Amino acid sequence: MSGEALRERRERLLGPGNPLFYDAPVHLVRGEGAWLYDAEERRYLDCYNNVPCVGHCHPRVVKAIARQSGLLNTHTRYLHDNLLDYTERLLEKFATPLDRLALACTGSEANDLAMRIARNHTGGEGFICTDATYHGNTTAVSQFSAIYEPVGGYQPHVRRVPWPDTYRLPEAAAGDATGYYLQAVADAIDSLKAAGIRLAGMMVCPLFANEGLPTVPPGYLAGAAELVRDAGGVFIVDEVQAGFGRAGRWWGHETSGLVPDIVTLGKPMAAGYPVAGVVTRRELMDPYRQREMYFNTFAGNPVACAAALAVLDVLEEEDLVANAARMGQFVLAGLQDLQQQLECIGDVRGAGLFFGIELVADRHHKTADAGLARSVVNRMREHGVLLSRIGAEDNVLKARPPLCFSQEQAQLLLTTLAQVLSETTRRQHR
Amino acid sequence: MSGEALRERRERLLGPGNPLFYDAPVHLVRGEGAWLYDAEERRYLDCYNNVPCVGHCHPRVVKAIARQSGLLNTHTRYLHDNLLDYTERLLEKFATPLDRLALACTGSEANDLAMRIARNHTGGEGFICTDATYHGNTTAVSQFSAIYEPVGGYQPHVRRVPWPDTYRLPEAAAGDATGYYLQAVADAIDSLKAAGIRLAGMMVCPLFANEGLPTVPPGYLAGAAELVRDAGGVFIVDEVQAGFGRAGRWWGHETSGLVPDIVTLGKPMAAGYPVAGVVTRRELMDPYRQREMYFNTFAGNPVACAAALAVLDVLEEEDLVANAARMGQFVLAGLQDLQQQLECIGDVRGAGLFFGIELVADRHHKTADAGLARSVVNRMREHGVLLSRIGAEDNVLKARPPLCFSQEQAQLLLTTLAQVLSETTRRQHR
Repeated sequence: MSGEALRERRERLLGPGNPLFYDAPVHLVRGEGAWLYDAEERRYLDCYNNVPCVGHCHPRVVKAIARQSGLLNTHTRYLHDNLLDYTERLLEKFATPLDRLALACTGSEANDLAMRIARNHTGGEGFICTDATYHGNTTAVSQFSAIYEPVGGYQPHVRRVPWPDTYRLPEAAAGDATGYYLQAVADAIDSLKAAGIRLAGMMVCPLFANEGLPTVPPGYLAGAAELVRDAGGVFIVDEVQAGFGRAGRWWGHETSGLVPDIVTLGKPMAAGYPVAGVVTRRELMDPYRQREMYFNTFAGNPVACAAALAVLDVLEEEDLVANAARMGQFVLAGLQDLQQQLECIGDVRGAGLFFGIELVADRHHKTADAGLARSVVNRMREHGVLLSRIGAEDNVLKARPPLCFSQEQAQLLLTTLAQVLSETTRRQHR
Repeated sequence: MSGEALRERRERLLGPGNPLFYDAPVHLVRGEGAWLYDAEERRYLDCYNNVPCVGHCHPRVVKAIARQSGLLNTHTRYLHDNLLDYTERLLEKFATPLDRLALACTGSEANDLAMRIARNHTGGEGFICTDATYHGNTTAVSQFSAIYEPVGGYQPHVRRVPWPDTYRLPEAAAGDATGYYLQAVADAIDSLKAAGIRLAGMMVCPLFANEGLPTVPPGYLAGAAELVRDAGGVFIVDEVQAGFGRAGRWWGHETSGLVPDIVTLGKPMAAGYPVAGVVTRRELMDPYRQREMYFNTFAGNPVACAAALAVLDVLEEEDLVANAARMGQFVLAGLQDLQQQLECIGDVRGAGLFFGIELVADRHHKTADAGLARSVVNRMREHGVLLSRIGAEDNVLKARPPLCFSQEQAQLLLTTLAQVLSETTRRQHR
């Protein structure tokens, strides 16, 4: 079946509201490392997917899933080593006070659960998030979504603060971005208090990935956590996108000087097998678990844990976190070179193998150019490199390749991007 | 490591609030068909788990998961046949107006999503459920839980109606159980109206499985749906436990004369791979999807769909739905014989391969005997047969074996149960 016929079949069967990437959607059938192949065996360099962090279809992960699926796959009300081995291995990756893990299947479930743990611990129900974020799709977590207004509308217990944009820093923030954005957190806390809503916590992605991956002002995360804790709330760091080496370190929050009260995990955790989790301290987790007896049929099952264990094995044995840091530096330097040459690149940001390339119509006024970003994403796909875009104005190219990204692949990303950006802007100016 | 040492390790690592089945928890390492094996190669007949509906580790499902995991596992924003093949195959199993499917990873996610689809369609936010139910663990769905009071307490938009208990029918209901329990639904609708809360819908398990698997009064489901629809709400049937042949028919609601507005699916859907779904009509689904652009990273991925397709294949090729009906009849007849012999069996209920055996201290007064149920569940485990208990008073033995249950296995369940019940009651009366 041709791509066009497949697309029609999809629209007929699934209906509207099921978006596909690219004006000419890709019909992928096979993946290996950072490469994806379509039905015509055309090869694409995957510079978008963070779920297969160890590379598509890593043999070790595939083998672990196949082996355990053939042995036993049942829930966590029987004794099994895999759940305990994984819990032990994973918690070793966190700072000491973080000593409890609850497993779920999706990042949305993990964030929903984190909200309840925070509410149970604080007795509050008020939450703070940023004004351009997304933390998942359950009814409760949808309240944080800036992408769409959730069904039933926004509820009064959520306050949104400006995300820490250091590229388009407001004049009032000049010289003290950290202080400016922290003041907004303090104001949100006051606003909840004034409304008689007790604070439960604040949830942020440590890289502010959906917001556009800004260069986070120094001390902002730790400062926000301090404000939130002083007001009786807990600080929740959503590592669903940032975690497991993506930022060139195990956790996105690691360099922030902050130990979160709660960390949520997802996407790359088991390289595609649905696994997510909540890490916190026992004084938050244990009272919650004793109250709600949280049980999730599939979560923590022997196959889920085998897959997640295999991901830890590969990350460690192939030294992929260090590779993400090294390749991240290489790509970032290349992007900065490109920025020197091309007026349309207003800003370049990176954290490990996660890049934001801000496209602007005018460097001086920093006018967001969402149209250019869209063209470039589609042209890159035509040239066999898959990436996407993010940001409050949808003008930031988002590149986030698997952590096994090689230098040749990094060079191909840079060369193709240089070519496509030059072509596209030249065509626009004709 | 011994079972006891493993249990201590588990308590140390996971903390409290992570219950295990049985006073002496089982350390399972392998499964095949309806058999489970512990670390000492001791064999147990699985009469509890509905997730591996096609039998533990069915080779066809294992092969599908292994094969697709090695080929490609990515999300639904690229074109892929598996998602479309599964959608087409699954929707064929539903009555005509049900023509849309949205996939999720867990039953909790599916029910949470169903609530939002109902709210979006009706503009309401009020829900009706029963007073002894459980539909999952997200913040929104926890509002239905009668097992624990959710964090933050019960919100005012949920009304609970008595579950249709036909064994302990109140005097006022004599002669018209259907009318009695429907009146409670009508009262709940009135109560929401009086409070100024617009009705979104009612959610029930068509077998009322957590409530104790009662013999549902004739016309109750269809009657409740009519009342709810007349009041502007939608009727949501939670088939997470009842679906995929469990009741000896494809869907638990099939014999009720009702076509639900929304059906939710989960547990057995992919035999342990985390897959769940919401089936509804396009006039409910499409406006919702266009509003929230519901996207779930893992849901509907090629491996999830391969696993779910393999489950459909096995159910069809091994004729397991018919087997569930046939074996269900056989077991039910055996249980009824047992009831004749043993005073402690107050009632026996069944739907396909799903049985509720109500244990009572006194048949005349129908006094629930939770202590006996607990003893029997533990003694059955010692005799190598795994089952559990349910019900508002926790005194109903719950048996729910894989759909591939054979007559020899059914006979073993009956013989062991007869022996254990006789021994346990004899000991109690000494």
